[in-house]
Order: sequence, then structure tokens, then C-alpha cells
Amino acid sequence: MQRLAAALHSQLPSADAMLVTHPQDVRYLTGFTGSSAALVLHTGATPGRKTTKKAPPAILFTDGRYIEQARQQTKNAGVVIAQGPILREACAWMQTQHVRQCTFDVEHTTVATLDTMRASIAGKLRRGFFLPAPALTARLRETKAAEEIVRMRAAAELGCSLFERILTAIEPGKPEVEVAAQLEFAARKAGAEAMSFETIVASGARSALPHGHATSQRLPKRGFVVLDFGVMLSGYCSDMTRTVHLGRASVAERYAYDAVLEAQLAGIAAVKPGVTCGEIDEAARGVLRRAKLADFFTHSTGHGVGLEIHEGPRIAARQRQTLEPGMVITIEPGVYMPGRFGVRIEDMVLVTRKGQEILTPATKAWIEL
Amino acid sequence: MQRLAAALHSQLPSADAMLVTHPQDVRYLTGFTGSSAALVLHTGATPGRKTTKKAPPAILFTDGRYIEQARQQTKNAGVVIAQGPILREACAWMQTQHVRQCTFDVEHTTVATLDTMRASIAGKLRRGFFLPAPALTARLRETKAAEEIVRMRAAAELGCSLFERILTAIEPGKPEVEVAAQLEFAARKAGAEAMSFETIVASGARSALPHGHATSQRLPKRGFVVLDFGVMLSGYCSDMTRTVHLGRASVAERYAYDAVLEAQLAGIAAVKPGVTCGEIDEAARGVLRRAKLADFFTHSTGHGVGLEIHEGPRIAARQRQTLEPGMVITIEPGVYMPGRFGVRIEDMVLVTRKGQEILTPATKAWIEL
Repeated sequence: MQRLAAALHSQLPSADAMLVTHPQDVRYLTGFTGSSAALVLHTGATPGRKTTKKAPPAILFTDGRYIEQARQQTKNAGVVIAQGPILREACAWMQTQHVRQCTFDVEHTTVATLDTMRASIAGKLRRGFFLPAPALTARLRETKAAEEIVRMRAAAELGCSLFERILTAIEPGKPEVEVAAQLEFAARKAGAEAMSFETIVASGARSALPHGHATSQRLPKRGFVVLDFGVMLSGYCSDMTRTVHLGRASVAERYAYDAVLEAQLAGIAAVKPGVTCGEIDEAARGVLRRAKLADFFTHSTGHGVGLEIHEGPRIAARQRQTLEPGMVITIEPGVYMPGRFGVRIEDMVLVTRKGQEILTPATKAWIEL
Repeated sequence: MQRLAAALHSQLPSADAMLVTHPQDVRYLTGFTGSSAALVLHTGATPGRKTTKKAPPAILFTDGRYIEQARQQTKNAGVVIAQGPILREACAWMQTQHVRQCTFDVEHTTVATLDTMRASIAGKLRRGFFLPAPALTARLRETKAAEEIVRMRAAAELGCSLFERILTAIEPGKPEVEVAAQLEFAARKAGAEAMSFETIVASGARSALPHGHATSQRLPKRGFVVLDFGVMLSGYCSDMTRTVHLGRASVAERYAYDAVLEAQLAGIAAVKPGVTCGEIDEAARGVLRRAKLADFFTHSTGHGVGLEIHEGPRIAARQRQTLEPGMVITIEPGVYMPGRFGVRIEDMVLVTRKGQEILTPATKAWIEL
């Protein structure tokens, strides 16, 4: 909350309050995990006056479903159970506190919500009351604190142990959805709160679909099986992909696998503070270009991950954002031959002060089952 | 798509195009299930000219990850695989088609996205190009077509069969999360694509949390277990809640259960076309008021359900929207005694021409395990 207040003060000095409504941002700042919340950070800053070290007053507004939960979970903020719409109560409170200007996050505020917020401010104050702002909390969340890395490491390691266990369950004739079911059951039994996204089990020609969610299609006697999945543990997401082969592979399949693995390793090797995200993408993409496979790598190389499965930074062509220690990103090149086969390999990678650390210890060696 | 074009023409006659980006809206209109899409409906309507019966041209813009999937799934629209950001390409296409004014959905468009859209339109056309509009597709989606009701019935029935099966797995000492895992495994094995939301298994004092996601807490020897869960089948969500009791119940627990059940039945009985959502809420809430329990019913009575778990209409106090045949809503009153216990009972209910039909056949009789 202190870092956020400092970011607000330095980037948007005219504002003396900030409204945060995106649930994962609220969770990050206060620990509250409910689905409905509006957090008002009131810095009381006046232009030209330095912010004090004292924690700025913050109030979390939520609704009656969360009376107990909000009181148990919320840190760094007072709690108000709104009787009516929570945004209206948050706006009313700001007026009692004589807030002059409040920022809101343009990435997570819909046009309709902004209209509602504006309508909640008395006419004479309304003009200029709400100041559009970039996603300041999302930017803070990109670099993880030590305790967040502990949780992400645990989530990634759980993912790896599930991968090892599911290998014995991969056999010709089994529906993709049953592989997903077994994986998810094991995840839940091991304490995962949920999967971080809809599990991808894409086999045979379906492996050429980068987002091939598990279907009732049965695993083939010969062909790739792409497994892309993640678990949520203490709120944090893991994300990993491994591609294994059932039966003997063709030369083209093995060539694609080796090229993707080489691209993935090159992407990882390029990770260190100060490098741009575009350079990471190019490190992986260049390997596939030299292997004449770049036209079949139809997505970006990776993304940040944390409380959400997709966070900043984007690891994609021409992205000029630079990596910083504490960022956790995925490196996940793939090659997709429409109607034939596909391969993807993905790890979570922590940017360290000197370089990088792979958080996903599962083997990437060729596996033929 | 025809109905949408007609709604656009009658409600916003100055617009000759509409941009749809909310994934479930895109799926509803075209069948495409990818996570990234922008659909442009170009009605070519000019003020004063009637829309023709011919299907209006529509183009679905998506990215390279979905080349194959978009071609396989998309109906009623052409497909363009964007090389750059999909919204920018959609906006460029509209300019080649001489679109003069395009509506966007204020409920699902962020302030940042609107800025991006505006920046993609040439300066001299930009002023007035984008017209804020209510969520027209969401409004259409509230009343389900016959084939949608078939799918929702199937999802609801799968939910009920899972409830019956999970009853044998509910026993003192088992962690809540393991009950959830067993339920979800059975759901997946039965073909569910996913759960419609994070499964709630809230036992003992935790049953007083209306949104008590399954934790590692073990089921008590005596106390309520609230099970609130749903499955996704062919894209459609089910949603049901049952509350069972482990061991012998106290008089207060049994009193609360009977009152919630009576409230739920009263809510259902009130469902028919032409009744306001506020009246449905009051039918349920009034029963709890007479039982002196209304203060412990801290949420609204229900919500629409379909491709998303929460859709319109909202079944809440003072809502003036009226029910129409084909709507599918939940009726789910509850009573929550902080620190002691909670009860909730929920069915999915179809509004029929003459009244209503319960889509959730599982028993609501008192169950003591």
C-alpha cells in the first residue's frame, strides 16, 4: 500500500485518492479474496507536500455476503459493509473525506462503471474528479516479493509433480477429458484451490490447436499429446506445458520437438534484468526461424504470471519493456502444423539479479510412451 | 445475428455497425469459443431505410492461435486472422467499409480499450464514430432459445446426478477440498468441460460464509455442509445448492432449514411471465421476514444463468425488470448465522409461458447423514 501511494504521488501528483476495484489488485493490497470489493486509498496528498511514511488510510467496501470474510482477511485497510451498491458508497465516503481528485484504473474500469462512478459524485465536484490512470497496482504486481516467490515456487512444483504422476495415465484410447480429470483430481487432492485455467490436453492432430482444451477425443496410438495446465495455490497460479509422444514419432515430429526445445532454452538463456521482452521473444523465435519453422510459431513467447494467469510483462515481438529482478514469466514457444501435429514446451522463469532461475523442474527431455 | 441487427436498428438507428468483444457474446452470435475475438456487425443501415431480411455482413477478427478453430467453429460471419492487435484491424476494416458510426457495449468495454479503439480511427472520422450502447447481446441472451434450454437442462441434470453421488462421500473428518475434488472428478468423467465456478463446500461454522470455497477444513461430526456448484456442458452453466446435515441437528438449525426451503419454494411459485424480479425477491424474502430471519439473508434471491454463471436478470429487491418466457434464473435464498451455521437452497428455474419449470430435480427434503 505504501509503494502504491508513492507511485500515485510520483506519477499522478494532483490526485489525493485512488480507487481500486480489480479483485486480484484488491487481494494483493489487502488480502481480501471476495469477488466484490472497492478499495479507496486516500493519500491526502496535496501538490507540493511530500507523502508521509505513515500508512495512508484505506477503506475496503464490500457487500453483505462477505461480512465475516472481510473482517478475517483484510489487512492495511478498514472495512465497510455497503448497504447499497459498493461503488456508490465508496464515492460517498470520498466526498465526506473531502477528496478532490481520485484516479481509477483504465484497464479494469468499464465505460459503464465510470458512468456510475461519475453519477455518484455531487454535480459541483464531478468535473475532473476522476482521473484516468494506468494500472499502477498491476505494474507493482509484476515484480514479486520474496513471500510471493515462495508461493509461486510451491505452485510450480505441485504442477511438476502432477505432470510426473499423469504420465502413467496417458495411453491410447483414453479420452483427453479423462486425462484432464485425473490431473485435476490429483491437483485438488494435493490442495490446489483450483486450476489456473481450463486444462489443455490436445492429442494427435488436435495438438496443432494452441488452445486445445480437453475434449472427448481419444488419445491416438501414435501422435503428440500436449499438456498445458496450472494450479492455484495460496492464490498464485502456476503454468506449464509439456509435450509427450505416444508410439514412435516421425522424423518431422522429432525435428519439430527438438527445434521447439532449443528455442525454449534459448529464450530462457536470454532472460536477465535489463533485457527487453522483445529480445527474449526474438531469442526463441530466431531459433525457429533458422529451423524454417517460424511461420508455424503463431503466438507470442510468454507472459507474466502471478495472482492471475496472464499478467505483465508481455514477452512478444517488439515489446520494449525491460525485465526486472523478481518478475516471473513464462517461456513457451510452440510449433503448430495445421491438421498434422503441434508441440509446445513451457516453463515459469524467475528473473534474478544476475540472470534467471527456472521454477518448473519437470524434465523436458523427449518422452515416448 | 438478425435479432441483434434488428435491436440495433430500433434502439440506435444512427449506427451502421456494432462491435462485439465480450467472449460469451461472440460465442452466442457465431459459435466461436476462442478467448480473443472482435466481431463487427455491419448493418449498412442508413437512417430512415428499413433493414433487409438478408443476413447482415459480419466479420470475426481473431489471432493466429485460432486459425484452425475459427474456421471450424464460426457461423454467420467471415473470419479474419489479424496480424496485429485485433481491435486495430477491426477498426481499419470498418473504415474500408465506410462505416459512419459503430456502437460498443459499455458494460464490457474498458476505458483503456475505448481509447485504443478511438486511436485506430482516422482523425477526421473519429468524432462521434463510437456510440456507447447498452449490452444488447446480453439482453438477447437472457431469453433462451429451445436448443439452449436443451443444453441447460442437460447441465442441470448432470449437476443433480453429481449431488446424489457425492452424498455417499460426505463424512466427518474428510477435508472440504476432498469432497470438492471428488465432485469435480465425477463431473469431468461425465463430460463436463469445466466447473462453472469455484466449488463451494462450506461445513460447520464455515457454512455461515455465503461464498465459502472448499478449504482444508475437515467436515465436522455435527453440522451443516453447504454444497454450491455447477458444471459447464456445451458451453452452458448449471448452478445448484443443497445443504445437508451431518449428525443430529439442533432445533435452531432445523428451523432455519425449513424456513429457507419455504422461502425458496415461495420464490419459485411466484415465477411467471410479467412478474417483476423485485416481486420474486420479495416472495422469498417475505417468508424469512415472517420467520424473523430476514436479517440473516444477506444477499439477493437469484440471477440469470446461461453461457455465463451470472447473467441478467438480477432477482433482487426493487428490480423492476419483468420475467419473460425462456429466461433461466436461480432461486437461492439463504440464512447465515455468523460463527454458527448457514443454509442455502438453490434451483435453476425456467420461465415458461404459463409459469415456471424447475430444471434442478434433486431432492430438497431434509437430509441427515
